Amino acid sequence: MARLEQIGFLGFDVFGTVVDWRNGVARAAAPFLQRHGVDVDPLDFADQWRGLYQPSMQRVRAGERPYVTLEVLNRESLETVLARHEVDFGSIPDAELVELNKAWERLDPWPDSVAGLSRLKRRFSIGTLSNGHIAGMLNLAKFGGLPWDVIVGAEIAGTYKPMPQTYLKSAKAVGLEPHCVAMVAAHNADLTAARANGFKTVFVRRPAEHGPGQTSDLSAEQDWDVIVDSLTEAADALDC
Amino acid sequence: MARLEQIGFLGFDVFGTVVDWRNGVARAAAPFLQRHGVDVDPLDFADQWRGLYQPSMQRVRAGERPYVTLEVLNRESLETVLARHEVDFGSIPDAELVELNKAWERLDPWPDSVAGLSRLKRRFSIGTLSNGHIAGMLNLAKFGGLPWDVIVGAEIAGTYKPMPQTYLKSAKAVGLEPHCVAMVAAHNADLTAARANGFKTVFVRRPAEHGPGQTSDLSAEQDWDVIVDSLTEAADALDC
Repeated sequence: MARLEQIGFLGFDVFGTVVDWRNGVARAAAPFLQRHGVDVDPLDFADQWRGLYQPSMQRVRAGERPYVTLEVLNRESLETVLARHEVDFGSIPDAELVELNKAWERLDPWPDSVAGLSRLKRRFSIGTLSNGHIAGMLNLAKFGGLPWDVIVGAEIAGTYKPMPQTYLKSAKAVGLEPHCVAMVAAHNADLTAARANGFKTVFVRRPAEHGPGQTSDLSAEQDWDVIVDSLTEAADALDC
Repeated sequence: MARLEQIGFLGFDVFGTVVDWRNGVARAAAPFLQRHGVDVDPLDFADQWRGLYQPSMQRVRAGERPYVTLEVLNRESLETVLARHEVDFGSIPDAELVELNKAWERLDPWPDSVAGLSRLKRRFSIGTLSNGHIAGMLNLAKFGGLPWDVIVGAEIAGTYKPMPQTYLKSAKAVGLEPHCVAMVAAHNADLTAARANGFKTVFVRRPAEHGPGQTSDLSAEQDWDVIVDSLTEAADALDC
């Protein structure tokens, strides 16, 4: 197993890799959906909302729209999903929509995340390298006890993964060359982009991210430097 | 004592407020000065280097120079100080100057800092709101065990304190209105600017920052919201 001798910083994908967005969003959505008589399973609602995540970033990535935070994109996606369910979201008090949007800042870590990060932090600097914004990452850390040293990623870079600048500006912000940084993610596409920009790679299998029917990212699609099933196993593999 | 009920984030000045730059820089400079036969007391050398800190930021603040990190400014100031001592710094291997410049990332926290921050972190989000750059703040945190939740300040803002944007963009980055943020600093001028931008203020007396002959910032020059002698005392005052 590669020990990543030269690595000084581990940058983590967060949604899906460190925290369980699906159950957390469903938990927050359930009372809202009931209150407004929306007849949809909260887990399906979470899937539908998350389904707009990648497309929502596309215009920013393409440079067709200035960078806006994921909070802004998530809110737009929320309105889109509500409209699809024929909810007149304009008639719902803004404070309720703001509150529901905060679901993305109140997600439980996977059971191994806090223990794994706490161990990895002894040897490496650790931080988020997520498409989430700084305040969202901060609030998620406070909610779940995630012991980040620093928050880099999309907001620092002014664009979204997998655009190269997201990785490169994050590495620069922590003062390291790309080959001294490892990306930790449950998504092969994230690691593909990270590797293309010179990062080392750690793949964490999260077969329940999308629930029992998950079909994507069930296994490593390349020879990532480290391949594990949890962050505690990552700590084992990296001698932390 | 004000309890800062509305505050969600404490932003800390770092050099002087949380860490002891003077003894740390002198410690790193001593072998360098001896090796190169520079006849100056290492503590005086630290004072001279630090003496160029405020002037070095001035052109960036004035918009006459694009933002560069404090690492760049510190390196320039180092060369200036060496030149004043008639050292031909161009003949010194670059790696040695890089290494000496890293002194600013290896400074001991004041004795109360880690304990105080650890307590404050239970109730508040805490982070650096310093003129230091992200990598420098990160490395300083790893060196001294400073438990920051997030690093904001000059690099996020693209300018230096006391320019308003440094405070305002930092508050925005952590997702809060200025009146929900408190600046914690040992320097009256920093708090004056923070207050002018709507922040709450916590003054920490650090009468040894500049050594035994210190003449500045020995006491609070305004009615800051909280006035204390250490970060553990700040935790007491804020019921942490």
